Amino acid sequence: MEIKAAFQGEPGAYSEAAAFEYFGNQIEVLPCEQFENVFSQISQGKATHGMLPIENSLAGSIHRNYDLMLRHDLSIVGEHNFRVSHCLMALPGVKIEEIKRVHSHPQALAQCEKSLAELGVKRVAETDTAGSARLIKEAKDTKAGALASSRAAQVYGLSILKEHMEDNPSNFTRFLALTAAPPEESPAPGKEYKTSIVFSLVNKPGVLFKAISVFALRDIDLTKIESRPHPEKTWDYLFYIDFAGHAAEENCARALSHLGEIAPFLRVLGSYPRHRLG
Amino acid sequence: MEIKAAFQGEPGAYSEAAAFEYFGNQIEVLPCEQFENVFSQISQGKATHGMLPIENSLAGSIHRNYDLMLRHDLSIVGEHNFRVSHCLMALPGVKIEEIKRVHSHPQALAQCEKSLAELGVKRVAETDTAGSARLIKEAKDTKAGALASSRAAQVYGLSILKEHMEDNPSNFTRFLALTAAPPEESPAPGKEYKTSIVFSLVNKPGVLFKAISVFALRDIDLTKIESRPHPEKTWDYLFYIDFAGHAAEENCARALSHLGEIAPFLRVLGSYPRHRLG
Repeated sequence: MEIKAAFQGEPGAYSEAAAFEYFGNQIEVLPCEQFENVFSQISQGKATHGMLPIENSLAGSIHRNYDLMLRHDLSIVGEHNFRVSHCLMALPGVKIEEIKRVHSHPQALAQCEKSLAELGVKRVAETDTAGSARLIKEAKDTKAGALASSRAAQVYGLSILKEHMEDNPSNFTRFLALTAAPPEESPAPGKEYKTSIVFSLVNKPGVLFKAISVFALRDIDLTKIESRPHPEKTWDYLFYIDFAGHAAEENCARALSHLGEIAPFLRVLGSYPRHRLG
Repeated sequence: MEIKAAFQGEPGAYSEAAAFEYFGNQIEVLPCEQFENVFSQISQGKATHGMLPIENSLAGSIHRNYDLMLRHDLSIVGEHNFRVSHCLMALPGVKIEEIKRVHSHPQALAQCEKSLAELGVKRVAETDTAGSARLIKEAKDTKAGALASSRAAQVYGLSILKEHMEDNPSNFTRFLALTAAPPEESPAPGKEYKTSIVFSLVNKPGVLFKAISVFALRDIDLTKIESRPHPEKTWDYLFYIDFAGHAAEENCARALSHLGEIAPFLRVLGSYPRHRLG
């Protein structure tokens, strides 16, 4: 199958770079203005896959994207831990000391605070990182730099003056690969799997302990757990759990069925090969 | 004691509005450029308190601010759930249909996507919400609007054209009130308390179950749980837990001591009166 991956952002966005890293350089990509569009493009068959950021090591989980997954009927088929490297780029020929202003998304500017302070440049906010690279190119601005992915430099023909401008080197974003196909029915041999689920619990003491026991009693390892006040039911909670294993394996299937006895709402978002970093 | 609350942002920032809501309108406030400065101003005695956003109902927990709490020795003395209302504001006399461009932080612009699409305006990114209000005021720009807190309109003498521009009405940010004083030693009678802790666990199956059992076996209710890959130790996890009760109550003290047997690292960030919404 030819892969066409939808992502939120402009060409050169970090999500696009993550899609190429995960699927390979030969794929087609489909930039979408909004996250919502990533889902609708896949549902309508205009893209085969989507690349969705779900959590960042500094900024945390993106609840909004979990909400979108619950509103749409897509499956997770993979995960990818993407190392964020904010590159300082400018028009070809421009030297680093000629730069007076640096354009980027405020979050990228904040993550590169110390590096930018050392350069003594003015910081200019833009709606996205790739867009700030495009802007410099279009304006032919020789006094401006942008903080964006190395891919953005390639897309807009800019030169990278410095890589890894971020102050904290452990800046990773975890992406999920989504498709419209139903979840895989059985694990491929020799692969290590992970399963992502969302469930709700009524707010009673000890209920989370019971819920987690369905995994612990079957020696199933959790790789993520997160509670969140239920967006619609004031006193209840939603839980995001990732566990090691495939939903179709017998002990995992039993754990999920057991969890179903405790949780008023339970959805399996997908089972997919685990991506270990480094 | 006279309260002087440090917050990150410009005058009129949401953190400032939250500080006034929580501490009352008679307090002094101290705007800080960076979150780091909020902590140092308190440590140096230049502010008595700090107001720190720790999680948002749509964007999730702010890991970076948890990291700052671990690097500094401050205590949490309170929490406040702040309802975010993005107000559309402009120079006095300007009508909503005259506005061509709306300035704000990209996250605020994204949260008001539908409302802005209906107005058919151009979106302009700025580094913060309050700063975009100041900008319009300074530029005397009669074609521009800003999305910011109602307090920003007051600070910069702008008129509010529309409140609650956000597409999702359940947009709350939870703030923590911090001080340099050591944690309160005993609960005040008649108050409902909450305690926030951070601990690490070695990555072994079932270890989280054991950790949570110290609360469940003592009927202590958890109000938040979140795992996070340890920023420095690749295979280990950090956990953020909030539980109902005061660390100085006997059953809570025993649970924490029991947790200390399991967790290589454990820090109590503070016990404080619980803030229930609505």
